[in-house]
This record gives sequence, structure tokens and C-alpha cells, in this order.
Amino acid sequence: MAIQFARRMDTLKASDIREILKVTQRPEMISFAGGLPAPEFFPVEEMKHVATRTLSEGGRQALQYSTTEGHPPLRRWIAERMNTRMGAAVTPERILITSGSQQGLDLIGKILLDEGDVVLCESPTYLGAVNAFQAYRPVFMEVPTDDHGMVIEELEKRLAENRRVKLIYVIPDFQNPSGRTWSLERREQFMELVRRWQIPVIEDNPYGDLRFEGEALPALKALDRDGLVVMLGTFSKIFCPGMRVAWLAAESPIFEKVVLVKQGSDLHTSTLGQMQLATYLEMYNLEDNIAQIRNAYRQRRDVMVAAMEQEFPPEVTFTRPQGGMFLWVELPAHINTRTVLQRCLERNVAFVPGGSFFPNGGKENFFRLNYSTMPEDRIREGIARIGAVLREALAESASPDLAAASQ
Amino acid sequence: MAIQFARRMDTLKASDIREILKVTQRPEMISFAGGLPAPEFFPVEEMKHVATRTLSEGGRQALQYSTTEGHPPLRRWIAERMNTRMGAAVTPERILITSGSQQGLDLIGKILLDEGDVVLCESPTYLGAVNAFQAYRPVFMEVPTDDHGMVIEELEKRLAENRRVKLIYVIPDFQNPSGRTWSLERREQFMELVRRWQIPVIEDNPYGDLRFEGEALPALKALDRDGLVVMLGTFSKIFCPGMRVAWLAAESPIFEKVVLVKQGSDLHTSTLGQMQLATYLEMYNLEDNIAQIRNAYRQRRDVMVAAMEQEFPPEVTFTRPQGGMFLWVELPAHINTRTVLQRCLERNVAFVPGGSFFPNGGKENFFRLNYSTMPEDRIREGIARIGAVLREALAESASPDLAAASQ
Repeated sequence: MAIQFARRMDTLKASDIREILKVTQRPEMISFAGGLPAPEFFPVEEMKHVATRTLSEGGRQALQYSTTEGHPPLRRWIAERMNTRMGAAVTPERILITSGSQQGLDLIGKILLDEGDVVLCESPTYLGAVNAFQAYRPVFMEVPTDDHGMVIEELEKRLAENRRVKLIYVIPDFQNPSGRTWSLERREQFMELVRRWQIPVIEDNPYGDLRFEGEALPALKALDRDGLVVMLGTFSKIFCPGMRVAWLAAESPIFEKVVLVKQGSDLHTSTLGQMQLATYLEMYNLEDNIAQIRNAYRQRRDVMVAAMEQEFPPEVTFTRPQGGMFLWVELPAHINTRTVLQRCLERNVAFVPGGSFFPNGGKENFFRLNYSTMPEDRIREGIARIGAVLREALAESASPDLAAASQ
Repeated sequence: MAIQFARRMDTLKASDIREILKVTQRPEMISFAGGLPAPEFFPVEEMKHVATRTLSEGGRQALQYSTTEGHPPLRRWIAERMNTRMGAAVTPERILITSGSQQGLDLIGKILLDEGDVVLCESPTYLGAVNAFQAYRPVFMEVPTDDHGMVIEELEKRLAENRRVKLIYVIPDFQNPSGRTWSLERREQFMELVRRWQIPVIEDNPYGDLRFEGEALPALKALDRDGLVVMLGTFSKIFCPGMRVAWLAAESPIFEKVVLVKQGSDLHTSTLGQMQLATYLEMYNLEDNIAQIRNAYRQRRDVMVAAMEQEFPPEVTFTRPQGGMFLWVELPAHINTRTVLQRCLERNVAFVPGGSFFPNGGKENFFRLNYSTMPEDRIREGIARIGAVLREALAESASPDLAAASQ
């Protein structure tokens, strides 16, 4: 007699990225596959002082249970920064500290989604969000995107045609995987539709602070007057991810519901982690650290884009992100990037094939490159190797005999 | 147009305990309500050395993303200790580090429960587990318990009558809330039934190491030959809860499914927290710390039981736990302990009314007392105050006029 698992387990499967990352841990591998922040900017020495001070000043509190909502000074700092930098108007009482933004995605899925409900998302979208929502068995409907963001007419069509839309999931700044940023006009049009239809929105914003050039645009949360936008922010990309401290800003009644399910999911996020972070923010200037990360990633993006312009065949197009950690490559429709990846792995260079970023599948001619982790010389070398594989693949596909032979 | 939440939100509600704990935070309050470990035994000074060493030896790793399964040295330590102390035969590869045992409960609910499935549990049972499972909309069926554990005939009857039993949830050691421990015979009979019916079991074991007297009994996990028992363990009660580091030991295929949903729920537990714990276990002897906690709790239990024997009226009965943090009080059936609590709060003493520990409700003449947090003189004083209220309540209920007046 076999164990009967819940129906949700039929569709859940291990993330492709996770499998690829296992292969890419060999030191000779040049990996553009992961989404890891560059560890050379982690404030390791500072954290020693921070840890000692946190334990000296409030050790017993730091090691004890605490409230589900989170450490009040940390919630205050987050609300203040969101208000000054993004023009939001959030109060500390509406900030929930989460165990990474991944948890924020899970919690929002949990409060909103019944089986068969519709989640609208960008096409492509972040596959970690798809994994989180999947547990609640929704139907994903992809909304086409262009260089300015979600295509509004397409969004409107789907809203009008589907009565069970419960959630719209978007990443307007330096999207994962595409690297694209929504224009101001698109943000305003989007919020107008949201207001008309009164559908809750997750604005996932892990990369917003990593802008290399151009002007910051208002967050959807700052344009929201109906309490529909839940904004997810995180310390993972501007500080370090290993502490799993992130946050969620939401209004009533969404906020109270999320707190309730967070309580049942893990009681609260590490008290020690939260207090260490609050101490760090008191002792040091996080903005200096962010500036350093931003500069390094800008240079790495420049190196990668320059190398791609030189090494990639002209049939291959790609985005030039103004910030964040990823860019997105499009090949002619008949080339499958999973096959390209196999050849690249043989040459010790890796990326993530684009197929996983389309929840309904069917698009295999894209791939995602990460530029935050590798040093500049390895970026040049890795792009050259991928370029060689791409030229081969295109040449073969242009020659009918070879194409047939490779099938 | 109101936001449409998922159906599961109809039944989820804030925990009673949480509401009571808010009231009990005033310093003049003598609280037996919470389940907090005594903070005076947290190794605050040691943790300073631990934090510095962890960051010196592996700072970049400690602040980076890590695997969903957890930090390998920590998983090895846990497996080894389970095998030597509990006679289990687990391998490190089957240990998953979780963000508190609360997360373990949520993850197991997630992989097993569809709406309408049956969860069997002790009556009374831990309300945090009910909160976690509730999100997946099961039906709870309470199995009567006596001083030796779950009543086997009653369990068998429910297994035979219900086709949709997907999970049995139990706390065989120093149960929360009752303080009771299952006999060896009961454990063996239970595992025989489990083997026959092939139903997955959660053995929640947060208090097993806090045994004050008597001999340790084998864990259900150690008696399991079919890979059906998932054991939850935690550092919260033997070290400190603020770091939210716990674990789950499960066999294939349950283990792989839990890892999968953990990935979607929060990627992984804090790398820094896990590595600090591993460093602590390397630098210090956790067993010394546990011995200290055990001694203090034993004394506090002794003081509380002695005071209860002196102060409580004879109609009131209670358990005398051999370990753990709680004892369980039973009043005559017509006395409602929520009313008793109101009067106790007026005298600045608090406990948790027993009603919340019965998932199907209907039993209001019990309450739970915690003896781990308060110093001995406050335990004596608090019990005296509760005793006075109980005598009043019993006297009133014996006098028909007063009973009518109080309705």
C-alpha cells in the first residue's frame, strides 16, 4: 500500500535551476546559471562587530521567541526607507518580516488561491514564484510583455475573460528573467486596470535598488490607493541572502491574513537574524554597501554585453538591462536552448534555458544569463564559449542534412 | 468589491494563546500561559565566541544562499545524536533542517493533506499543529487518551471507520498540553496498528530531552520499520528558540517530497543560523546546557505541584509530568475555564484555557499551566491566586443562586 500524497504533489516538481546548479558547482565551470549575489561584497568583518554588539545589548531577547510580525526597529527602518526612496506611504505596522521573499510568495498564495483560481503573470516570469503558487493548484495565464512591461490590452482581455482571476504577479524593476523594467506609463495604465478590477497584485521587487543608470520609477505600491498591492522586498540582494530576512508591505485586510498564515507556517523569522540586521543598519551605512554592489554589477553587465555584441551571431538578440542581475537571450524559434545548454556544459559554461520561465511551457528558444557572480575575465571567456556553440547550432540548423542528423 | 480570499481563510483564526500572551506581557503579571524556555539558560556569552568564529572561518559561505536540505555538519550531528540517544537508525541524508518545528508541521500538512482528508490526533492535542494543518482543510478526529497515551481501541475504531485518514499526529513524550508520556506497551501497540494501516505519523518531539526522572522510552521512529514515522526535533527547548532551527527526520519518499515543498516555501533555513549552531556544537557541550535546563525545570515543576496540592480544592485534578514544560488541570465538567481565566487576569495571573487544545471544541473544563518560565516564588504566589479563584468558582457553582447570577 503506497502512501497517498496530496493532489498538489502531482504537479510539483524539482526546479530545473536546482538541477543545473548541482552541475555548475565544479570550480572549472563558468556559471551564468544561478542568481547568487557576489559574496566578495558581504560585510563579513562588520558582521562580527554586529553579532557581538547584538548579543551584548539584547542577547536574551535575541535568542528568545518573538512576535510573528517581526522586530519593531527593523520594521520601522524598512517603512521609512520605502517612503523616502519609493514614494510609498507605508507604516511600520503594515510591514511583515518574512523568511526570504520566497516565503512572501508562499504566504500570499496561501491566503488567496483555491484550486482552479487564475494567476496572471508576465510571460516570461520568475519560476520561484510559480513553484510557490503551484502548491495551491491555480491556473497560470501568461500575459505577453514587451520592452515597456506587461502589454495592457492583453492584460485587459484576460481580466475580462476570466472570472476567477485572484492574483496578478509582476516584477516591474529589472525583471527576472528578462532584465526589463516597466515604463512609467505602463505602470499607471496597469494600476488603472487593477483599480477597476480590484484584483490583488504582488509587486516583487528584489532588484529595485540595483539600478545602474536612468531614473528610478515609482513603485506600483506608491501608485496604489486601494490597498491592493503587496510589495515584496528583501535584504538578499543588497546585503546578503544567507540570513533569510525579507519583508512584505501590505494593507488591511490582506496584512492581517498574511500574519495569520505566517504564524501557522513558522511562527516568526529568526529573532537573532532580525536583530543583527537592525544592529548593522544602526552601526553602518547600508547605502555604501549597495553603491559598491551596484558599481560592480554595472561593470560586469558592461563586460557581458560588450562580449555578447562581439561573440554572438546577429540572429541572436538580447536585452540590455538598466539594473538587476540578469539578461535574457532570444534565439530563432527553431533552436532549443536545452540542447544548446548540453553543448555548453561540455565546454564548462552554464546558463538557465528559458523554458522554465514560461509556466505553460512551449517556448524553448530563450535563455537567461546572470552577470553578478563571475569576475570580468571569466565573463569574457564564458561568453566566447557560448558564442561558439551558438554559431555551430545556427550553422547546423541552416544546413538541412545536419539538422536532420541531429534530430 | 471585496477581495476574495481562499476558502481556507474562512476557518483559520488567530490563536487564543497569542491573544492571551499579549495581555500577559505586563511585568506585574504572573504568567503560566506561554511556552517560553527560561532565558536565563541561553548561552549568550558563548554565542559571542560562536558568532565570531563562524564568521572568521566561513563568513562568505555563512552569508550566502545554501541548499534546501541544510548544513551538512549540522545534519550529521543530529543524525548521530538521534541514533545514540533514541536508538533510531537515521542517516544525515534523511535529515531536513527546518525553520522551527512549526515549519515541519506545515510542510507535512502540505505534502499529505487534501481538503476533507482525516487527521487523527490525541485529545487534547497541540494547537500549533492544528493551526498548521488547518490551512489544508482536513477533518480532525480526536482519539481519546489516558495516562498511558492514545487509547488503542479507539484509534483502531477510527482507522477502520474512515477511509480518508492521511496522517496521525502525536506527541508521545511530555505532551503539550497534558504533560503525559506514552508507555512502552502503548508505543508498540500503536506502531503495530500504523504498520497494518500504513498511515504516515508525525512524532512531534520537542521535549524528549527534558526528562526529569524515570527511564527514556524508545521513540516511535525507532520502532518504525516501514518509513512511516516523521520525527520532528528542535533546538528551541534545549538551546534557544530565537534562531528558528529545527529538523525533521523522514524516509523516502516522504523526505524528497518535503524537501520539494520546503524549496517553494522559503528556499532554505538561515545559513548563518545553521552554521552558528554547528559551531556551538563543536566548541561547547550542549549536554551540559540541557542538564542545567532539566534541573531548573524539575525544581519548578516540584514547586508548582507542591503548591497545587496545597492550594487547589480536591475536586480539581491534575497531571504530574515526568518532564517537559506543561501540566494539565481538570475541573468539574460544569466549570468553564475561560470564565476562571477572566477572574485570574484581574488578579494578575494567567494560564491557557483548555478549550483550544480540542480541535473539535466542546470541552471547556481544562486548563494548561507552564512551569518553565517563572521563578519559584512567583510560581507559589501565582498558584495561590489561582487556587483562591478556583475555590470561589466551585463554591458559587455549588450554590444555585450564585450560579444563576453569574450566567
